[in-house]
Amino acid sequence: MKAIGVDIGGMSVKVGLVDENGFIIQKNVRKTAETPELVLNNIVEQINELLISNNITIEDIRGIGVGSPGLISSDKGIVDYSSNLKWDNVKVVKILSKAFNTNIKLSNDANVAALGETIYGAAKGYKNSVMLTLGTGVGGGVVIEGKLFEGWQSKGAELGHVSLNINGDKCSCGRRGCLEVYASATGLINQTKEQMLKDNDSLMWDYVDKDINKVNGLTAFECEKKGDASAKLVVDNYVSYLSEGILNMLNIFRPQVIIIGGGISGQGDNLRLRIVKYLEEYNYGYVNAPKTEVLMATLGNDAGIIGASALV
Amino acid sequence: MKAIGVDIGGMSVKVGLVDENGFIIQKNVRKTAETPELVLNNIVEQINELLISNNITIEDIRGIGVGSPGLISSDKGIVDYSSNLKWDNVKVVKILSKAFNTNIKLSNDANVAALGETIYGAAKGYKNSVMLTLGTGVGGGVVIEGKLFEGWQSKGAELGHVSLNINGDKCSCGRRGCLEVYASATGLINQTKEQMLKDNDSLMWDYVDKDINKVNGLTAFECEKKGDASAKLVVDNYVSYLSEGILNMLNIFRPQVIIIGGGISGQGDNLRLRIVKYLEEYNYGYVNAPKTEVLMATLGNDAGIIGASALV
Repeated sequence: MKAIGVDIGGMSVKVGLVDENGFIIQKNVRKTAETPELVLNNIVEQINELLISNNITIEDIRGIGVGSPGLISSDKGIVDYSSNLKWDNVKVVKILSKAFNTNIKLSNDANVAALGETIYGAAKGYKNSVMLTLGTGVGGGVVIEGKLFEGWQSKGAELGHVSLNINGDKCSCGRRGCLEVYASATGLINQTKEQMLKDNDSLMWDYVDKDINKVNGLTAFECEKKGDASAKLVVDNYVSYLSEGILNMLNIFRPQVIIIGGGISGQGDNLRLRIVKYLEEYNYGYVNAPKTEVLMATLGNDAGIIGASALV
Repeated sequence: MKAIGVDIGGMSVKVGLVDENGFIIQKNVRKTAETPELVLNNIVEQINELLISNNITIEDIRGIGVGSPGLISSDKGIVDYSSNLKWDNVKVVKILSKAFNTNIKLSNDANVAALGETIYGAAKGYKNSVMLTLGTGVGGGVVIEGKLFEGWQSKGAELGHVSLNINGDKCSCGRRGCLEVYASATGLINQTKEQMLKDNDSLMWDYVDKDINKVNGLTAFECEKKGDASAKLVVDNYVSYLSEGILNMLNIFRPQVIIIGGGISGQGDNLRLRIVKYLEEYNYGYVNAPKTEVLMATLGNDAGIIGASALV
């Protein structure tokens, strides 16, 4: 049976009709409207457009799954707060329920991506996974025995806010040295800039046309390939931080698979194999620990829609 | 219905007949024998003694739960390895099944204690808890929706081996700066000694009769009460490390309760209220995070027997 997946983002709201194998039959994308009321109105229209265009009704689908950034109360179907969307206490499930008489679920976008990658994507066939989405921040998602683990009141699985260095750099959450500080794209960019300022001769300066503001998540990876020692240092350090964060997750959850998502996962095996090497050096946490696979996310920008459809 | 709980330790093996409310009706303790065969023979005898003395048979109990130190494969009922017991690949459940035709389960001692404290002890009435047992090392146990969470192949929940400082002091696991390095009794003793060596006038020297080898987990706590500044510094630092470790657990699991066990939990509210203050300062992980209770373990030395009985 098909389902509807809704991926609410700061820039656009994507709604997809997804089949039972996780394939998107059709999607409908709109720019994110100004207010939550307008966004939810749009979503109702987008869903209706998909149903009509596919010649089906709401009874023909399993339900509607919604992924949203921010703090979510998934049991109540409420977006408590999202700085990204500027939403405060938005009763998503209640509002959508007025338009559609079906099963409707809401969860955090990082959780939803983890569920999608585990059921339909990189970790298909596995039941226990931890996903780290490396973007502006670090999102975490945990799947235990095929089901999303969100913690009490769905306020857990904030894996980006596990501190790797309690005396380290300040994190946006108020603590210091969180995984997010080091392993996010933002962290990588900061580390790249710091190293460039120490090495005026680095190729990285040419790569950004001498403009440090042009540094992005690719700068160090690309210049390392050209043999730049400073770029290699940045990438090596980045891999260490990320791998230490993964070692923590292995000792806590011992998942069958770690899934790496977000823009940086585009590095593919170049990044993946270095993480694996690091984990092997530390016996995946300790001697006799079962080996966890490290896989790159495969659903890309559709992870939100596909994962949301897996909520129902 | 009653159950048998077995607590295998390096010094003694305790077997108890436990009622459905977690009360020990009778217990039978023997010194830990030399070999796994002898220990398991003893356990069979100890169980039979309890059954006979209570005038019941194996059909009158729910089953037998066993807690053991070391790496455990709980689904297979095997102690893979225990440095403490010097056991290697001991098929506990299979061997006990030859003597008793009942439900028999095995798990790690830290997990078993967490289950016992959640069902019958400090966190009775709650369904989501994380327990940290502060002893020679730091043991972790996680209960999610009333059930033990052990990770894939029961090799997760190693909460003592989450690094708080990846550049910190070496841990026995091979990594650096693990929670165990800082928050175990061993860690506290090391921190106490370090501070004493910096302060020849500290009252802590008198407390240990000028013999640094007499330092134990009480030294800093007791001398702080007498107004010693160095002792206060040690305790303050210890509380910070432990609380940072707890903040990591809150962001990961968001349990309803954190349970502190092990010898150091004997400090009671003196320790508990300082942890709570630290967590409040950091909004329990971040703003709007639901507040997790911090409770001291209440089952004491019987946690192993009572928790093991809760496995079945």
